[in-house]
Amino acid sequence: MTSFFGDIPKLRFTGPQSEETFVYRHYDPDEVVLGKRLEEHLRFAVAYWHSFAWPGGDPFGGQTFDRPWFDADSMEMARLKADVAFEMFELLGAPYFCFHDADVRPEGDSFGETIANLESMIDYIGPKMESTGTKLLWGTANLFSHRRFMAGAATNPDPDVFAWSAATIKACMDATQKLGGENYVLWGGREGYETLLNTDLTREAEQAGRMLAKVVDYKHKIGFEGTILIEPKPQEPTKHQYDYDVATVYGFLKRFGLENEVKLNIEQGHAILAGHSFEHELAMAASLGVLGSIDMNRNDYQSGWDTDQFPNSVPEVALAYYEILKAGGFTTGGTNFDAKLRRQSLDPQDLILAHAGAMDICARGLKAAAAMLEDGGLETMRAERYAGWDASDAKAMLADDDLDTIFAHVASNDLRPEPRSGRQEVLENWISRFV
Amino acid sequence: MTSFFGDIPKLRFTGPQSEETFVYRHYDPDEVVLGKRLEEHLRFAVAYWHSFAWPGGDPFGGQTFDRPWFDADSMEMARLKADVAFEMFELLGAPYFCFHDADVRPEGDSFGETIANLESMIDYIGPKMESTGTKLLWGTANLFSHRRFMAGAATNPDPDVFAWSAATIKACMDATQKLGGENYVLWGGREGYETLLNTDLTREAEQAGRMLAKVVDYKHKIGFEGTILIEPKPQEPTKHQYDYDVATVYGFLKRFGLENEVKLNIEQGHAILAGHSFEHELAMAASLGVLGSIDMNRNDYQSGWDTDQFPNSVPEVALAYYEILKAGGFTTGGTNFDAKLRRQSLDPQDLILAHAGAMDICARGLKAAAAMLEDGGLETMRAERYAGWDASDAKAMLADDDLDTIFAHVASNDLRPEPRSGRQEVLENWISRFV
Amino acid sequence: MTSFFGDIPKLRFTGPQSEETFVYRHYDPDEVVLGKRLEEHLRFAVAYWHSFAWPGGDPFGGQTFDRPWFDADSMEMARLKADVAFEMFELLGAPYFCFHDADVRPEGDSFGETIANLESMIDYIGPKMESTGTKLLWGTANLFSHRRFMAGAATNPDPDVFAWSAATIKACMDATQKLGGENYVLWGGREGYETLLNTDLTREAEQAGRMLAKVVDYKHKIGFEGTILIEPKPQEPTKHQYDYDVATVYGFLKRFGLENEVKLNIEQGHAILAGHSFEHELAMAASLGVLGSIDMNRNDYQSGWDTDQFPNSVPEVALAYYEILKAGGFTTGGTNFDAKLRRQSLDPQDLILAHAGAMDICARGLKAAAAMLEDGGLETMRAERYAGWDASDAKAMLADDDLDTIFAHVASNDLRPEPRSGRQEVLENWISRFV
Amino acid sequence: MTSFFGDIPKLRFTGPQSEETFVYRHYDPDEVVLGKRLEEHLRFAVAYWHSFAWPGGDPFGGQTFDRPWFDADSMEMARLKADVAFEMFELLGAPYFCFHDADVRPEGDSFGETIANLESMIDYIGPKMESTGTKLLWGTANLFSHRRFMAGAATNPDPDVFAWSAATIKACMDATQKLGGENYVLWGGREGYETLLNTDLTREAEQAGRMLAKVVDYKHKIGFEGTILIEPKPQEPTKHQYDYDVATVYGFLKRFGLENEVKLNIEQGHAILAGHSFEHELAMAASLGVLGSIDMNRNDYQSGWDTDQFPNSVPEVALAYYEILKAGGFTTGGTNFDAKLRRQSLDPQDLILAHAGAMDICARGLKAAAAMLEDGGLETMRAERYAGWDASDAKAMLADDDLDTIFAHVASNDLRPEPRSGRQEVLENWISRFV
Repeated sequence: MTSFFGDIPKLRFTGPQSEETFVYRHYDPDEVVLGKRLEEHLRFAVAYWHSFAWPGGDPFGGQTFDRPWFDADSMEMARLKADVAFEMFELLGAPYFCFHDADVRPEGDSFGETIANLESMIDYIGPKMESTGTKLLWGTANLFSHRRFMAGAATNPDPDVFAWSAATIKACMDATQKLGGENYVLWGGREGYETLLNTDLTREAEQAGRMLAKVVDYKHKIGFEGTILIEPKPQEPTKHQYDYDVATVYGFLKRFGLENEVKLNIEQGHAILAGHSFEHELAMAASLGVLGSIDMNRNDYQSGWDTDQFPNSVPEVALAYYEILKAGGFTTGGTNFDAKLRRQSLDPQDLILAHAGAMDICARGLKAAAAMLEDGGLETMRAERYAGWDASDAKAMLADDDLDTIFAHVASNDLRPEPRSGRQEVLENWISRFV
Repeated sequence: MTSFFGDIPKLRFTGPQSEETFVYRHYDPDEVVLGKRLEEHLRFAVAYWHSFAWPGGDPFGGQTFDRPWFDADSMEMARLKADVAFEMFELLGAPYFCFHDADVRPEGDSFGETIANLESMIDYIGPKMESTGTKLLWGTANLFSHRRFMAGAATNPDPDVFAWSAATIKACMDATQKLGGENYVLWGGREGYETLLNTDLTREAEQAGRMLAKVVDYKHKIGFEGTILIEPKPQEPTKHQYDYDVATVYGFLKRFGLENEVKLNIEQGHAILAGHSFEHELAMAASLGVLGSIDMNRNDYQSGWDTDQFPNSVPEVALAYYEILKAGGFTTGGTNFDAKLRRQSLDPQDLILAHAGAMDICARGLKAAAAMLEDGGLETMRAERYAGWDASDAKAMLADDDLDTIFAHVASNDLRPEPRSGRQEVLENWISRFV
Repeated sequence: MTSFFGDIPKLRFTGPQSEETFVYRHYDPDEVVLGKRLEEHLRFAVAYWHSFAWPGGDPFGGQTFDRPWFDADSMEMARLKADVAFEMFELLGAPYFCFHDADVRPEGDSFGETIANLESMIDYIGPKMESTGTKLLWGTANLFSHRRFMAGAATNPDPDVFAWSAATIKACMDATQKLGGENYVLWGGREGYETLLNTDLTREAEQAGRMLAKVVDYKHKIGFEGTILIEPKPQEPTKHQYDYDVATVYGFLKRFGLENEVKLNIEQGHAILAGHSFEHELAMAASLGVLGSIDMNRNDYQSGWDTDQFPNSVPEVALAYYEILKAGGFTTGGTNFDAKLRRQSLDPQDLILAHAGAMDICARGLKAAAAMLEDGGLETMRAERYAGWDASDAKAMLADDDLDTIFAHVASNDLRPEPRSGRQEVLENWISRFV
Repeated sequence: MTSFFGDIPKLRFTGPQSEETFVYRHYDPDEVVLGKRLEEHLRFAVAYWHSFAWPGGDPFGGQTFDRPWFDADSMEMARLKADVAFEMFELLGAPYFCFHDADVRPEGDSFGETIANLESMIDYIGPKMESTGTKLLWGTANLFSHRRFMAGAATNPDPDVFAWSAATIKACMDATQKLGGENYVLWGGREGYETLLNTDLTREAEQAGRMLAKVVDYKHKIGFEGTILIEPKPQEPTKHQYDYDVATVYGFLKRFGLENEVKLNIEQGHAILAGHSFEHELAMAASLGVLGSIDMNRNDYQSGWDTDQFPNSVPEVALAYYEILKAGGFTTGGTNFDAKLRRQSLDPQDLILAHAGAMDICARGLKAAAAMLEDGGLETMRAERYAGWDASDAKAMLADDDLDTIFAHVASNDLRPEPRSGRQEVLENWISRFV
């Protein structure tokens, strides 16, 4: 054992009244809800990057966290980081983790060395997964931090960067498959532009479409059985990112004929930046058939950038899980905490307790959502509102009638549609009974 | 003549140094730019609603404008309003106007009476168009103001409202065709939701898709040769509107197989509300093949609602026309001033001068855009940036190579892509030379 | 009794498990918390305007609510409206209400007639207050809806509008005093500008300062013992409003020497529009000694205008009441629901249930806040964080040392301050235990 | 000479038609406007930090700029950086620069060593200023980047950090005085909070007030004749910063009795983040008597963080300089380009051309503003709008009348104020004639 977490004990469920610090008050992995254990519903994953690779910097200040593995970008430090990471996964009892290549391996002096470093670290991590029982929710490639990606990865004006990106993705998909990952994620942090003035939208879209097609082809070639996921975000780091939101990515998938091959990884903070609520993005994705997985975090509603905070609002989280459960729950997806400590939260115990608090919030949210679904009140009210459309003449009008026919119908029957209450406050009160 | 505009003279072009008030300083309709008269490039249209039907109210106050036709919602007042409107079109020398049914006719006591009112007003307006030479850029149906539409038009939970909407659209398409309109527009101000809790996204999308298909069918049935246009807006009046932005509407069109039948009418203010620049939305639409027409106005960058102000920034307007000219210019589309006076701008001359100022700004913007295109500097710099992709091996990689092949290429050649300057400030300085 | 609310029964407290509709699940006015009844803590008030005077319009549509008193702007209808209002106050058991002059009386043909209408309605309302036991939390003047105020009330370029406003405030202060109102509120919806270009900031600030001084003088002249409250809002209806937020109003009060005479009425929705959380504005006002009363509502975080929704988030409401309780609780202030039904919530029962749900949410929030205060954990952690400043040398440095002295101290002692964890997530988890 | 800028020539004024690259097209320092040379009006300053100390990182990626002095944080590299900086000042002919201590010196191992490094670099920079003729607009202390400041400088919970900050300010004020700086700036990037939960607003305000008082005392003690400037910013890096905007800082100064000792340095990007236009903040500061200096840059209107771009809109810049000229122009203040290259603008010539383009934009803006002032049209229209207040009875009412007197006046004279047009569009058109 490393000495990083000192004598913090492995967290266990105690119930809400406990006065202990390192416990779950609401998350009992074995509690059965809607016929399934909470652990299987929630499928929690820890994000390697925020917890272990982020130094606490912001645009106006540098490193605040004092982590021994920040001393050097070496294989030795990468192994120390992995040791601590898996200690934390065990302390938390988190069933999954997620990672970028750049989180786990040092950058090499060449492409080949970088890949070798990655492969060596995958060999180091595999046995740790086995011994701790931690699984891989998804892997991904960091195609945004290094300066070579400053103008895009797949959408770069330089074909060599496209090539580098494609080659890196291949290595990361291989690594993900090797570690038994259940999904592979693409987040296009640099796939966008800083200024339209130097950008060729048509070329860049074509490049992005071709890259995605290659990724899908490769998945089939190697027999990867997980899901390919795109993660939408509207902007930041760039002024505009192509994978703006769920609806935009859906249009992109349709354009390139990939809507049956790719699903979405939806993040609360990214939804907010795009002008949507989290539940909107989830409901939209479910409706379009592309709901895959979630990055669970929280955005500050008064800040204009991605704050990636740990969730703390049961009412909000419950609405998110309601959409997920209504859509059938996760299959390969899960709840990845793409959340980072505030940069002033310096202590190892902050890392543990932030995750524990978030897991409790999610457990409360999911249980509330399950209770709402079991009660069925909301769906009954929704169905009643649209009941008129279940009549056969309404169906026929929708399916078959042309404007002339409908015009004649309205005029000859002197229709006078009378609005009915939308009952928003009543529905909100109903929700409040569960959260 | 009515007495509304008093002795305001018909505006003529005088050049920038004029000290007169009622003149164009930059808009000379006959000036030839890129081989075409300015009037034919810009295709200005006045919006009937903001100029003649809006009383000056806002959420915290009522009517401020003292217009004689606001005295009653009668046919007599509707005719007076039309008289004044066409006087203004003539004073301005505006080649086009645009209207909703509700702008020009009083609401009747029944659907039939409302339609009869509309038809009567169309008969009144037709001869005025002829005598003044004003043409119709587009017609549309107001399916958002009356309380019957409060929960949507096509997407209403009540099939009777869908029917009413379809029947109204038929009447408006007929009116548009009768008046020789060059486009027909659909703006879905109530096609969205106030709360997800009472909303069935899947049903509503299906309803919207079916309605649009019926509109396209009807266009072909009656031989309307104009363009069907959807106008995106992300929110306001509702919390979320389905036609969020260009990319979202494109996805919707693809989903229902209508991407070759429908184009977009893009508004500056709506782009801003969706988190985009105007030129972004125009460039995106051009790239996706759905650029149709524009609503030219300006949004206050510090206000969170649609302010619909007259444009006043040449640098901004020039970038918009640059995208339009680069895409080949308008065909059936044009520049509709979907802009309203500030509610404190009470005088008839404010109405005239606001339009005149906006037309001058647009003329300056378009001439600057044309000069940029003729110079070609920007496109040269853009092409150079992507020149690497014109090489045959780059093309082959994009088209054919799989991830394994590309990986081998990167590794064996030890590629080390070196970033090149994006030159954003240089490009912005270049733009500044023209505006 | 009017027939408006049909057979809706008077609401009573039943506890959270009740399956009845018209009940309180959490708000028991007689429950004692921190030594005081909940009713006395919360001091709920219903806003006359949103509930009875707002027709359901928005910028893109007109009236949706079908209220009999909207038929005419007459004294008869004003009395009917008052009858229904007081029925609702009784059904809810709301201890207070709030009103503008324009909510309760029809506009007359002259200033004198308008005042006479107001006085007549005050005489009508007084006995109703007595018979129902409903008290007046505050009165105010509507100096924003009529077109005469379009360019400001106190800050109008026309001295006659200043005079009209002053005279109206006098009448409203008289009415408030007559009805035993506990506060008098000033909201400057038109005290701001649409464009800086026509605005003289210096003159307008002077006018605003003089008006406020006159209001304070008049309070003392008539012996009004309530509190004068300013309600900050940053914008909407205008582009910029002078009473932007708490800190801005504090600066204004200091500038005119009125910081000991005037306090603030703080609204959640206005805080959000100004870029602040509600608890920020409350804490700032408490720290500056100007916390007076609250307008409790909720703003949609994704909409850029004031949505005035009923509150529905216990975690948010609890943080607000925490600041209020920590500051000693309300004295003359209270919890005014400046919240309106969504315009689709057409039914009388929506009006009742929206308030009932909000009162339950506030009761839960206040009880959670009281429990947090009683526990004391948060304040202990806060005090520990600043404990260094309680040392006498730290106090001396702050009070007395000049920069040279401090420089010498740092240099000679080779100070090396080491940051300590801010523990944000731990504190948030602690809050979650109570909400 | 270093080899950094290669053969880029010293920029000279050529006029707008020049086809050369390294020239000014609009900025002729010797052009006389309103009786003063442009150089004396604009008082351009280059910001040391963005141009020479910022590596091009953003929250999702690291260094992009390849600058030789980034190789090490050593005195040697600091001197190389200074060499290049002064070369650029000379190439541009910029009369001023601005700096933080941390921009020019390496961090030492102790406070003493850090100060010694600073003093050594001041000794290195002084002769360079002399030989190049570059002056210091202002100096400042970086009290936000190092982790010791993560929880604030003056407002830190740890008195030792307050002490460190005070001592650093002393050293920076000494350095500024030694170099003949004309102002000393305080930007409180960490004076604010990440969460209210761990924050004591009252203590922190007291600390901030005391620190500012000490700074003012020290200014007088050492006989520094420049101006002390506070730079407002609402948030970023923290969630909330105390120096939110002009009005907030004014209230703070009044609270601590420092409104006659301190002025403001106002940045366009910070104004935007606070929900204001740049001209609003300038006009407000002028009206409150605290307008000092400006940070000229541009914020992306669609991004929610401080983008610090070089200005490129003449219409916007003209309105800013209009407020400055109307207030009498700069005294000790100036135009500091607190603007940074986009991180993709890698080349040394981008650094030169970005500044040159910005200086041209500012020159165009200032000349347009001067022409507007000379024309006088706007001020005439503004004065006419308020003319009613110049009447003696209006003045008497404002100064003396109480509410009763005014009420009697309105009632007995049956006042019926009639609104007049605010003419916003006419005023905007008038502006457009100059830009």
